Amino acid sequence: MSADVIPLNRAEPEGSIEPMLALTAQGMNRVNQVILDRMQSEVPLIPALAGHLIAGGGKRLRPMLTLAGAELVGYSGTRQHKLAAAVEFIHTATLLHDDVVDGSDLRRGKAAANIIYGNPATVLVGDFLFSRSFELMTEDGSLKVLKILSGASAIIAEGEVDQLTAQRKIDTSEERYLNIIRAKTAALFAAASRIAAVIAECSDEQEQALDEYGRNLGVAFQLVDDALDYDSNAATMGKDRGDDFREGKMTLPVILAYARGDEEERAFWKAAIGGFRTSDDDLEQAIALIDRHGAVDDTKLRARHFAQRAIDALSIFPDSTARQAMTQAALFAVARGY
Amino acid sequence: MSADVIPLNRAEPEGSIEPMLALTAQGMNRVNQVILDRMQSEVPLIPALAGHLIAGGGKRLRPMLTLAGAELVGYSGTRQHKLAAAVEFIHTATLLHDDVVDGSDLRRGKAAANIIYGNPATVLVGDFLFSRSFELMTEDGSLKVLKILSGASAIIAEGEVDQLTAQRKIDTSEERYLNIIRAKTAALFAAASRIAAVIAECSDEQEQALDEYGRNLGVAFQLVDDALDYDSNAATMGKDRGDDFREGKMTLPVILAYARGDEEERAFWKAAIGGFRTSDDDLEQAIALIDRHGAVDDTKLRARHFAQRAIDALSIFPDSTARQAMTQAALFAVARGY
Repeated sequence: MSADVIPLNRAEPEGSIEPMLALTAQGMNRVNQVILDRMQSEVPLIPALAGHLIAGGGKRLRPMLTLAGAELVGYSGTRQHKLAAAVEFIHTATLLHDDVVDGSDLRRGKAAANIIYGNPATVLVGDFLFSRSFELMTEDGSLKVLKILSGASAIIAEGEVDQLTAQRKIDTSEERYLNIIRAKTAALFAAASRIAAVIAECSDEQEQALDEYGRNLGVAFQLVDDALDYDSNAATMGKDRGDDFREGKMTLPVILAYARGDEEERAFWKAAIGGFRTSDDDLEQAIALIDRHGAVDDTKLRARHFAQRAIDALSIFPDSTARQAMTQAALFAVARGY
Repeated sequence: MSADVIPLNRAEPEGSIEPMLALTAQGMNRVNQVILDRMQSEVPLIPALAGHLIAGGGKRLRPMLTLAGAELVGYSGTRQHKLAAAVEFIHTATLLHDDVVDGSDLRRGKAAANIIYGNPATVLVGDFLFSRSFELMTEDGSLKVLKILSGASAIIAEGEVDQLTAQRKIDTSEERYLNIIRAKTAALFAAASRIAAVIAECSDEQEQALDEYGRNLGVAFQLVDDALDYDSNAATMGKDRGDDFREGKMTLPVILAYARGDEEERAFWKAAIGGFRTSDDDLEQAIALIDRHGAVDDTKLRARHFAQRAIDALSIFPDSTARQAMTQAALFAVARGY
């Protein structure tokens, strides 16, 4: 039961999301049905606004983790569908509130909900989906699942507030940055995976292994996301290129470039992150500096470390289609954008 | 087991919150301790922002309902303290999000949290408290309580979105208005009361009675709140006088004055609610028109109807200190502001 190893001598790790999509395709149809059913309301603005985001082409990676985890541990029931929908509702509520918090214009390549429907409705529909998520969990009836997901929700909010506090603070350390992404992103990945082991009544060891798979995958995923915002080779993304830069978010590429920069470069970063140099030319300069210090590549290298830990966490499970799909997905997470 | 009757031949109903405060004083100390404990976080901005609102002199009426309900049904355990704190967290989260939605400047006579800490942090700390609330409920462990409070939370969000949809719509009916306040306010009053019967394992009839007490009290409470915003005799309030008017909120005083007004008055209301006449002079004119048609008095009369229904719902319980305190509180709810 050894784990697969990312081939470090290759230019980029390989990987594919296809096996994961195939593994969960049937289940995701049922999850999508629950999502569509439960975002309905007698107040028409609610399904309109929720549907704008939910139909907006998200990857639904988090609910997929619950379904893949259930396959991995050989769970034969149907509880994962409602719970995966609950996970996606928490994520969707977070995205809606994020768009308000960040003042985003774009989300998944489309106008963000707050641009079309305004901040007030976006905040409130987020609250609605969040409540619906807890209704779904309550219907499922596992207090252990409720504990895991309500705990993860509180940690997500804490991470988002912490990120807000670190915004425009050039002296943010890599350690603090890692704590923020563990909270705002990895906590839900971990919970989504872990609950599969809970409903299947697995051993603590298996529960812990699925938690670690999700948690490390979440960190890897966010690292790559943050790298892509400064990647001179990246294809156009759903969100506005340079959003993190203009918002003065302290992500790892900036932390590394600042640490490795000379006095003049550091002066630039202080001004830029402080909000005094945010033009397109400034963004180009930021990308050039990040490139000079290999900060995007090294951020991706950090991501590979966490992806490998995610894969290693699966080593306690026997080889299976599910385990291979989850391994491929972790490799894919760090290969995105090439 | 007859219910007390509001003396309709008197100028104003009497009532006092004092018996309710005395009844719940000891319990509220424990609730406040839970609130203070559970709003803590390693991210310092969270207790700072939450504490600004929580220490800001709220009445804590909703958690008090849970405690009073527990007394009424002779519950002898301690579960009500955590659950009452959960109720207050839901309410606090809603207030924080409301302040962002309404763009409020004042809350309880102090600068609103969003003015001091900004909209982003206010949204996120609301999310944190909402998550904490579900953590508290999960610790309590009653799926029935979780169902009641997650259901109420979804209904509150629906009511808030519905209110947003009705904003600046002069043709909003009294019926729609009632549906909105039942959802945005009364649902949590009902749930806060009802869960006392759940933890005490009361009969369905008693559970239903406490639900109806809270629900009708909540409607009465909101009606009076909406009346006070246009009451020419009202003392200065915590929130900005005329907020509802400037935001184009369709509350009952406006609905009644519009329905009873002549062509010229209706033209004024259309312009005012449409957002084209929102000066201080316009507010004075609105108050004068509302006064001319007795719309504040009649809104309060509607409130008395619901307060009486709340009191009557208690008639299945034997007379007791708790029942008297809850009766007095309902009378007080409609006597506020005189």
